[in-house]
Amino acid sequence: MADKRTPSADPRRAPNIEDVARLAGVSTATVSRSLNSSGRVREATRKIVETAARELGYTPNFGGQALASNRTNTVGAIIPTMENAIFARAIQALQETLAEHKVTLLVATSQYRPDREEAQIRTLLARGVDGVVLIGNRRAPSAYALLNARGIPFVLLWSAPANSPFVTIGFDNFGAAHDLTTRILEKGHRRIGMISGLTADNDRAFDRVQGVSQALADHGLSLSPHDLVECRYSLKAGENAAMQLLGATQRPTAIICGNDVLAAGALRAARASGLTVPDDMSVIGFDDIELATAVFPPLATVRVPHRRMGVAAGEHLLRWMVQGERPPSLTLPTEFVERASLGVAK
Amino acid sequence: MADKRTPSADPRRAPNIEDVARLAGVSTATVSRSLNSSGRVREATRKIVETAARELGYTPNFGGQALASNRTNTVGAIIPTMENAIFARAIQALQETLAEHKVTLLVATSQYRPDREEAQIRTLLARGVDGVVLIGNRRAPSAYALLNARGIPFVLLWSAPANSPFVTIGFDNFGAAHDLTTRILEKGHRRIGMISGLTADNDRAFDRVQGVSQALADHGLSLSPHDLVECRYSLKAGENAAMQLLGATQRPTAIICGNDVLAAGALRAARASGLTVPDDMSVIGFDDIELATAVFPPLATVRVPHRRMGVAAGEHLLRWMVQGERPPSLTLPTEFVERASLGVAK
Repeated sequence: MADKRTPSADPRRAPNIEDVARLAGVSTATVSRSLNSSGRVREATRKIVETAARELGYTPNFGGQALASNRTNTVGAIIPTMENAIFARAIQALQETLAEHKVTLLVATSQYRPDREEAQIRTLLARGVDGVVLIGNRRAPSAYALLNARGIPFVLLWSAPANSPFVTIGFDNFGAAHDLTTRILEKGHRRIGMISGLTADNDRAFDRVQGVSQALADHGLSLSPHDLVECRYSLKAGENAAMQLLGATQRPTAIICGNDVLAAGALRAARASGLTVPDDMSVIGFDDIELATAVFPPLATVRVPHRRMGVAAGEHLLRWMVQGERPPSLTLPTEFVERASLGVAK
Repeated sequence: MADKRTPSADPRRAPNIEDVARLAGVSTATVSRSLNSSGRVREATRKIVETAARELGYTPNFGGQALASNRTNTVGAIIPTMENAIFARAIQALQETLAEHKVTLLVATSQYRPDREEAQIRTLLARGVDGVVLIGNRRAPSAYALLNARGIPFVLLWSAPANSPFVTIGFDNFGAAHDLTTRILEKGHRRIGMISGLTADNDRAFDRVQGVSQALADHGLSLSPHDLVECRYSLKAGENAAMQLLGATQRPTAIICGNDVLAAGALRAARASGLTVPDDMSVIGFDDIELATAVFPPLATVRVPHRRMGVAAGEHLLRWMVQGERPPSLTLPTEFVERASLGVAK
C-alpha cells in the first residue's frame, strides 16, 4: 500500500466515522446510531462514542452531501421568551450544532402569544429559512398549514405527545411532573400547593399540572382550585403566588413550581414569611437551569435535557434539510434532582 | 365645524401627539423629545409623557411615513449569548418597540466570538434586514465595512464611547464601575478583589476593570494582577474565581464582580468557605438582572438601563430606516443599587 500511515497519523485529514468507531471500540453502525440521537443505543455507549467523536473533532457529514446552493443555510427558531434563560441552553446547543455545518440560527420570541408566533413563522418563511424550530406542539392548524404548504422541515421541541403527526424532540412533561409529585408524597407531604405557568397557550405547563394532579389522585388526594395558582413565569409572579398559597388557612408543606424561576420566587416568599426551607416548607422547581443552584437552598427540580434537545433538533433538521428524509420523533429522559429545598414533611 | 367631538371622544380614532401633550400637560415638542429618548427632557417630565402615551395607546408614527414596501420589515440583532438572560430585557424591549411597527426582530448569538459575529452580520445582510443591532463598539474594521458598504442603519448598544463614528446607545461602563468602587471604598474596604469577564473581546468588561482600577488609584490603591481574575460569564466560573481570591494570604473584604452572574457564583463560594456575606465579606454585582434579587443576600449592583436601551434602539433604528435620518448617539444613566450583599468593612 502506498500509504501505510494509520488514519490518525495525519492530523490534517478530517476524522471519519471509522476513526470514531475504532477509538470508541464499537461498530460504525453504533457510532451512527449514537450520534443520530436515535435513542436505540445504551446511554453508556452513547457517552463513549460522543467522547471519542469530540476528542477527534468528528462531525457527521450526512452522507457526504453538502448543503445545496439553493439553500439559505439559515434555520429559524421561535421561542416563547429570552427571559430567565429557560430556553437558552437548548438554543445554544442547537446553534452550535448548526454552526458546525455553517448554518446560521436566527431566533425570534413570541412572548407566549400564538398570534405573534404565527406572524413570525410567516416572516421566517418570507426571509427564507431552510428549517424551523418551534417550542411545544399545541397551536392553531393555520400555523401548521403555513409550514406544510411550503414544505419546510420543522421540528417541535419541549414536548413528546403520543401519535403526533409532526416531528417532536422533547420529553414527557406529564410523566416528569407525576414522578416528582410521587417523590414528594414519599417524603410524607400531603398538603401540596402548585404554582404553574399560564396553561392556556402552553401545553408544557398544562401537562405538568395534569401530571401533578394525577399523582395526587393516585394517592387519594386532589389538587383543589385554591391549591393551584397560575401566573406568568417571573420571579415576582412566583413570589406573589407563593404568598397567596401561604396565606391559606391550611398552608401547604410543599409547593411544586412549574419552573425554577417560580420556585426561586417561592423561596423569597418563604423567607419573607419567616419560614425556613425545607424545615418549615419544601419548594420544588422544574428545568434545572443555572438559577436552581444559584439560590439558597438549592432547588430540588427536574433536569430537562436542554442540551440534548438542542443537539438532536440540529441534527434532525440538518439531515432532513440535506437528505430530504423526515427524521423520527424523539423522546428524551428527564431526571429528578434531589437537593436541599425538598425535605421530609413535619 | 362638522365634527365637534373632542379628540378623545372617539375611541376608534388613533391617538395623536396632541392628545398625549394635552393629557401630560406639556407641549407637543416636549412629547416628541421625551418619546425620542433624545435626553433633553427632565426625567420626571419624560415619565409623565410616557405614562400618558401608554395610557392613550399612542405610538409615534415617524411623520406619518409607513415602512416602504421595498423593505423587509426585519431587524437583526447579534448578541453575545442568551445564557444568563443578560441581554434578554433589552432585546425584549427592542422587540416590543419594533413589533408596534410590524417589524420583526431576528436574533443571532455570537458566543462573544468576533469571527462568528462577522459571519452573522453577513448572513443577516444576505437574508435582507432593514437594520442591525450589535452589542459593544470594539470590533474589526471589516465588520463595520460590511455594514457601511450596504448602507444599512445600525446601532451599537451597551457602551457609550466618546467620539464614536457610529450611533451608540449605551452607558458609561468605566464611570459606573468607578462610581461603585468609590462607594465600596467609602464603606472602609481596602482589600478589594475583582472577578471580570474576559476582557480581550469585550469592551464593556475591559472598561469596567479600568473604572475599578482608576477609582482604586484615586485612593492610592491598586488592583494587582492577583487581585483580578478573568473568567467567562457563568455561575461556576464566578464561584471558582472567588475561591481563588479567597485562597490568597490576604483575602479581600470585598469582591467586585463584572456582572451579577459572577457575583452569584461568588456568593456560593463564600457560603462554601463558611463566610457570611456581608459580615465577613461583601460581594457586588453589575447589571441588576432578576438573578440579583433571587440570590441571598440580594446583590448590591449597578442598574443598567436595559429597557430604555432596547426601546431607544428600536426608535432610533425605525426613524433611521423610515426617514433616512441618522439619529444621534445616546448615553443613558446607570444607578448604583445598594443591597444587603454590601456591608461595612470589618
